[in-house]
Amino acid sequence: MKKIELEEVAKFKKDKYWLDFVHDSYNMRLILFCFEPGQELPVHSHDVDSEVFLCVLEGEGSFIGGEKDIPAKRGSLLVSPVSEPHGIRAKTRMKVLVGIAPPI
Amino acid sequence: MKKIELEEVAKFKKDKYWLDFVHDSYNMRLILFCFEPGQELPVHSHDVDSEVFLCVLEGEGSFIGGEKDIPAKRGSLLVSPVSEPHGIRAKTRMKVLVGIAPPI
Repeated sequence: MKKIELEEVAKFKKDKYWLDFVHDSYNMRLILFCFEPGQELPVHSHDVDSEVFLCVLEGEGSFIGGEKDIPAKRGSLLVSPVSEPHGIRAKTRMKVLVGIAPPI
Repeated sequence: MKKIELEEVAKFKKDKYWLDFVHDSYNMRLILFCFEPGQELPVHSHDVDSEVFLCVLEGEGSFIGGEKDIPAKRGSLLVSPVSEPHGIRAKTRMKVLVGIAPPI
């Protein structure tokens, strides 16, 4: 087992969102995303049979890529096939834990 | 895609920790655990090739099951093969997002 302190890992960059692969194995990938206000993870999708979750740990913004933007705040959890378009737009500073299983 | 508000799902029970399967598919299972102070998810393991993560969303306690208890607080993330003993003990009220991939 290994422990990661996401608060210590988190970094924010002025020019683009920041990310760190906090765990990566053939079973699952876990990525911490940190956004400054206004930054976004552009809508994207992959044509494979896998799932992604996005869990907001801190801050406010939107899950994007669906018909309408979905408000997202601390405790908001989005689950989606990776084949469906998904993304994140930050309104405030945001920390989002993203998981992909199986990794693609 | 589906969105779940973990803050709205969370419940606390006096007699035992509470849990809800917020997502369950053949790719991944996501479970929200809520603990009152002193409650614990007993140390357990399963002899299968799968991985589990435990992400503390709120509160303080310990990850248990290893050689020593590991302090856990908001933002602490534990990743472990499900075959290694793991559990959680709450010191304060705790909310913990647990993920298993592939589900067992």
